[in-house]
Amino acid sequence: MNHKRRKKKQKGAKMVVKVYGPDYASPKRVILCLIEKEIDYETVDVDLFKGEHMSPQYLKLQPFGVLPVIEDGDYKLYESRAIIRYYAEKYRSQGSELLGKTIEERGLIEQWLDVEAHIFQPPLYDLVVQLLINPKTGVASDPKRIQEDEEKLTKTLDVYEERLSVSKYLASDTFSLADLSHVPFSNYLMTTLKKEYLIRDRKNVSRWWDDISSRPSWKKVLELHPPVL
Amino acid sequence: MNHKRRKKKQKGAKMVVKVYGPDYASPKRVILCLIEKEIDYETVDVDLFKGEHMSPQYLKLQPFGVLPVIEDGDYKLYESRAIIRYYAEKYRSQGSELLGKTIEERGLIEQWLDVEAHIFQPPLYDLVVQLLINPKTGVASDPKRIQEDEEKLTKTLDVYEERLSVSKYLASDTFSLADLSHVPFSNYLMTTLKKEYLIRDRKNVSRWWDDISSRPSWKKVLELHPPVL
Repeated sequence: MNHKRRKKKQKGAKMVVKVYGPDYASPKRVILCLIEKEIDYETVDVDLFKGEHMSPQYLKLQPFGVLPVIEDGDYKLYESRAIIRYYAEKYRSQGSELLGKTIEERGLIEQWLDVEAHIFQPPLYDLVVQLLINPKTGVASDPKRIQEDEEKLTKTLDVYEERLSVSKYLASDTFSLADLSHVPFSNYLMTTLKKEYLIRDRKNVSRWWDDISSRPSWKKVLELHPPVL
Repeated sequence: MNHKRRKKKQKGAKMVVKVYGPDYASPKRVILCLIEKEIDYETVDVDLFKGEHMSPQYLKLQPFGVLPVIEDGDYKLYESRAIIRYYAEKYRSQGSELLGKTIEERGLIEQWLDVEAHIFQPPLYDLVVQLLINPKTGVASDPKRIQEDEEKLTKTLDVYEERLSVSKYLASDTFSLADLSHVPFSNYLMTTLKKEYLIRDRKNVSRWWDDISSRPSWKKVLELHPPVL
């Protein structure tokens, strides 16, 4: 694993957040949040294609062998959406407010964060495996699964289109963790998966994507950590 | 859909939380939390085997057609783990404290909530589909998937065993939403899936299961809403 300091450490500061696996989409969710919250970080490369996520050194930090994990002094945390919740809460008044103004708004942010995690991402993640990872590792892809994944995404994005016709962002009229959480994987649709029509065929989803992907934070993520897939 | 009042409404109270789909495991996650937080609720039956989750009436409340959803006056919320976070936060000082004492503890609770959602539950959910739902609906089950599901659960529970050898509960030494969230689906392992050995073969997982499943809240859930699967 290869350590890189991406931002200057403040003089005298003893800790800077260390994010593992910046090349991939889930760790980018964390980095995007850290940039929105104006939190310094450094990165440690983890090469999935060399199996570094299954090395004893990595498994000590993340026993399930999945990306990302962060170290913040003695504090370690994994699961990207748990990490972004933690920093959004810890630095509530610094950078962008990402958790809403009321408990009810936070509830809706949590709802859409979980829709992203449980309904939106699984078929999209599988498309990344089938169409971007398998060809690199020599594993055969399954055309039936690819078709099912796309059908699921189509249905899901139809619901998003409806929601985004009455709300500027998913949870409310303010950008939040729920929107942020969609960016890194959706970017594959618009680039290497070549499925931009899933976004572009839907007026409100298209407007929403242009909005959330043109934020300076995401441009910075792409510039500092170009996707490897 | 069939409305049932499970608890007496307080005199003068205008709202009581309405939980859809109490027969099934994900809505039971919500009910378990409401009981721990001493919050009155009523239930509305949704029969998945009659396709009631795809009725226009239900889709108006939950456009993805999945259980559960709650109504609390004008406020509607879906995704079971978003709902339990909402009530644990809204009634912080009532009933059991389920979100930890510090932001760092909350972070670990969120981590284990997401491990449950993304690593523990998916293979277990698939076992429920393959072994309990498919035989009822006449769909053929896939022995290869059943085997893969069990292998994944085995690996996951080995990590749990390690964690629970140094911590009484998953996130800390205090029962939290992270533990609570595991109960309804794990109950299938111990009952109709007949895979109690996955729990019993691991000393600390077994001790943890006995602890979290013997709380009065879960006994009450089973008594009031016996599982249909």
